Amino acid sequence: MTSRSVKNVLFIMADQLRWDYLACYGHPSIKTPNIDRLAKRGVRFSNAFVQGPVCGASRMSTYTGRYVTSHGSAWNFIPLSVSLKTLGAHLTPHNVRCAVVGKTHVEPDINGAARLGIDTHTDHGRLLMEGGFEPYERDDGLWPPGFKVENNKYCDYLRSHGYQSDNPWHDFANSSLSEEGAIQSGWKLRWADQPAQVKEEHSETPYMTRRAMQFIEEQGERPWVLHLSFIKPHWPYVAPAPYHDMYTANDILPVKRSSGEKDDPHPVFRGFMDYTPSKTFSENGVREKVIPTYMGLITQIDDQIGRLMQFLEETGRDKDTLIVFTSDHGDYLGDHWLGDKELFHDTVVKVPLIVVDPSAEADQTRGTSSNEIVEAVDLLPTFLNALDLPIPMEWLEGQSLLPLLRGEGQSWSKDMAVSENTFAFRDCVRLPIGAPVDRCNMTMVRTHEWKYVHVDGLPPMLFDLVNDPDELCDLGKSPSHASVREQMQRRLLDWLFCRRRMTGIAPDAIASWNQKELKAGIEIGVW
Amino acid sequence: MTSRSVKNVLFIMADQLRWDYLACYGHPSIKTPNIDRLAKRGVRFSNAFVQGPVCGASRMSTYTGRYVTSHGSAWNFIPLSVSLKTLGAHLTPHNVRCAVVGKTHVEPDINGAARLGIDTHTDHGRLLMEGGFEPYERDDGLWPPGFKVENNKYCDYLRSHGYQSDNPWHDFANSSLSEEGAIQSGWKLRWADQPAQVKEEHSETPYMTRRAMQFIEEQGERPWVLHLSFIKPHWPYVAPAPYHDMYTANDILPVKRSSGEKDDPHPVFRGFMDYTPSKTFSENGVREKVIPTYMGLITQIDDQIGRLMQFLEETGRDKDTLIVFTSDHGDYLGDHWLGDKELFHDTVVKVPLIVVDPSAEADQTRGTSSNEIVEAVDLLPTFLNALDLPIPMEWLEGQSLLPLLRGEGQSWSKDMAVSENTFAFRDCVRLPIGAPVDRCNMTMVRTHEWKYVHVDGLPPMLFDLVNDPDELCDLGKSPSHASVREQMQRRLLDWLFCRRRMTGIAPDAIASWNQKELKAGIEIGVW
Repeated sequence: MTSRSVKNVLFIMADQLRWDYLACYGHPSIKTPNIDRLAKRGVRFSNAFVQGPVCGASRMSTYTGRYVTSHGSAWNFIPLSVSLKTLGAHLTPHNVRCAVVGKTHVEPDINGAARLGIDTHTDHGRLLMEGGFEPYERDDGLWPPGFKVENNKYCDYLRSHGYQSDNPWHDFANSSLSEEGAIQSGWKLRWADQPAQVKEEHSETPYMTRRAMQFIEEQGERPWVLHLSFIKPHWPYVAPAPYHDMYTANDILPVKRSSGEKDDPHPVFRGFMDYTPSKTFSENGVREKVIPTYMGLITQIDDQIGRLMQFLEETGRDKDTLIVFTSDHGDYLGDHWLGDKELFHDTVVKVPLIVVDPSAEADQTRGTSSNEIVEAVDLLPTFLNALDLPIPMEWLEGQSLLPLLRGEGQSWSKDMAVSENTFAFRDCVRLPIGAPVDRCNMTMVRTHEWKYVHVDGLPPMLFDLVNDPDELCDLGKSPSHASVREQMQRRLLDWLFCRRRMTGIAPDAIASWNQKELKAGIEIGVW
Repeated sequence: MTSRSVKNVLFIMADQLRWDYLACYGHPSIKTPNIDRLAKRGVRFSNAFVQGPVCGASRMSTYTGRYVTSHGSAWNFIPLSVSLKTLGAHLTPHNVRCAVVGKTHVEPDINGAARLGIDTHTDHGRLLMEGGFEPYERDDGLWPPGFKVENNKYCDYLRSHGYQSDNPWHDFANSSLSEEGAIQSGWKLRWADQPAQVKEEHSETPYMTRRAMQFIEEQGERPWVLHLSFIKPHWPYVAPAPYHDMYTANDILPVKRSSGEKDDPHPVFRGFMDYTPSKTFSENGVREKVIPTYMGLITQIDDQIGRLMQFLEETGRDKDTLIVFTSDHGDYLGDHWLGDKELFHDTVVKVPLIVVDPSAEADQTRGTSSNEIVEAVDLLPTFLNALDLPIPMEWLEGQSLLPLLRGEGQSWSKDMAVSENTFAFRDCVRLPIGAPVDRCNMTMVRTHEWKYVHVDGLPPMLFDLVNDPDELCDLGKSPSHASVREQMQRRLLDWLFCRRRMTGIAPDAIASWNQKELKAGIEIGVW
């Protein structure tokens, strides 16, 4: 009889994958049979939210188990404080190896390390600079055209297969070739329907999947947590054959937008409508050209997940591995007159989340879906819980999903999700508003019924999710919704005040503090 | 001609010193001629507020230049994250020595250091554990009776002068002797009018002052910042002769309290009324017994400041040293039916603050007072500014007071102060309310007109400072003040959202980010 208790965690993340572009989430024509099969083996969450609508902030919340306000890495490229405990820091003391294949977007806190006298060239120091993930194959992708890429395993791999270039990632894996033999850069959307200039097996998704299988194979019976972090379907929107023309314009979802949204929009919304991808995706024909390729990239990921699942079954690892599949945020793709991401519509902050728990206790929930509001910060405590490790609540701000997987969902108390961003880095938003860079914060609070977005120094946004599920009508200034706004503001305030500190005393140590003080003879103010 | 630009900072802090127990702040009979003279030489701030109403939280804000929410050391004994930049970390790279004589209350982040692999036995590691202050004579005082004190310079000093005991701090410096020769512990208030069993010159305040003068002398012409941090007039309320009977019950300020305060008080206020020192100070005769000694301890500090100022003049250091005199918080002493501290009445969160700037630019403000709202977090940027060092605004949350000292006060924009605390550690408050330890946060926002206290999960408190300057009537539930509460809540929310992160990108680097990205060839979503 094979063991069915969880020994490993396979944590799969796609990048910029919308929740509604998967068959098991209701897409009418996309082919994702392997991800659908995961959903049949586990629980599919239909209200899962990320804590930031950009890669960096969202991922740092997932990796630290803390909201953006509490980890401070509020946008891409803001260093992750070396002092923050990450997933890896919670695992390695218990001899669970924690590694990444693919993207993390962790920006090293070089200044912090220098100030603290930490040598970043030791194994320990390097790990701190990697946010606690052993960089088995760390690769964040995304190189500008013309950039000479060095010390990158994937680019070296491409070169070893004949793709000779300073930047084979760009010139081959993420570009197509014109009839005249010129490179058609994937950074430009106009060529999205052309095939990438690499064989499918040489493209990023299958390469990273093979590396993940190598890692798992090497571990043998030692426990591990592997973050397999696909860079796709994030732009550049270029797919290798046959994925580049697997879908047509008939397969894309109808656009979610209304002319009313352009009528006196919130200044931040207006600013993001002026962001280049928003303008491009609002042009006729762009969605029809780009989204079929986006879908092809998703099906390619699905095919690779099929291979990976087959590998796990062949090695028996399906019996002792918790499998999580999710995304770091969505992609507007023209919805709401927007492109890329950065605001808080469900298109972007709601993500697919499927969790397969091999243990017998989870049999009762297999193939079901859960409507509970859950968040990316809940994943880290879930992993620790599944591995039967301590969950230090003085550090973590989420809660384990295990009760929902094991039929104890009645104990689930979370009824709101929070997501945060700053528009400080986007000139098209900040400059017209005239906000200083430290007054550009935005925070979303979302319940089942309402979505409220606090915007520093500006009116809030408010959406009635029951009567306006597509979020087309901003009630942020509606006089008849003042009490709703007040109630949501109160929730936000309460939430803000119970963020975790950078150093903690365990809750039970606090609760017993007063008695200990008295016992030690510290008697204040006695007569 | 002697230089008059600032080269050093003498940062003097008293502990638990109320703003209104100094002659220059209006006390009718206390003798503080030397502190009054400082006020004549500099600017006296009549609206200076600390960021926490307990020692630890307040001091960590002063030493880091960040609000409590941003440094996380929310109460006494919560470690100060090793990753936080403190005053010392801002100074030492510029070869300015930063040392302490007396109390800091910094709790070392031992776990953080261990996780980061920092050796706390090196000079560098030790400094991180001391919150960046070189422990020239670190001494937080406060030893329980019967505790065997080892490796403490002041206790060794007492022993070398014949005060033989396991705990000479308690048995001699902070206790009196009964007629029968028994130790009358200073922890008990009943013996507050008896003289301490040490000669005045052997008591804490003159000892620390001498150590400060030694430090300054040793530096010669090298620049320094010295934190002279007196432990008094903090309890135990015991003074050596002649300070123990210098004042009588006729000298104490009338008590600020009303019977209305006991009528259906806010649950947190009620809980603190049940705190032992509150009950003791509400008894008849206790204030009359204790406060004269409290006043004696203040006059002793004043006498020592007189000696210190004479020393600075004799050594010429008065010409190049910025002098700051303040306190970490006040003491209820029976006001509002409370003892000790921990709530947000002006009695506790408003502190004396006097700044003497030797430079010629400050001549125009000498002897004046400023009504502007200023905060303890403003001190660190003031020090850096006075020393002509960079002020890294991605780390600091206060603003330099120099404009107010140098006649450019019109640029002062701060119009509110914030102070934070938790009642998690006080059973008499938390248990009747039944709050879990992570839902005990309280935050005060104070303008010139209003004081609003947000209490997690409970109604707020609100005081009308114009019509009720003694804060006797809580308008937290007053129906006619709903719009004031809403406005104060909005201020609180805006404030919360611009707290600094643990890692920073300088504001101008953020402002230019978008353009740099485009120049690097990162063109998102172009057609």
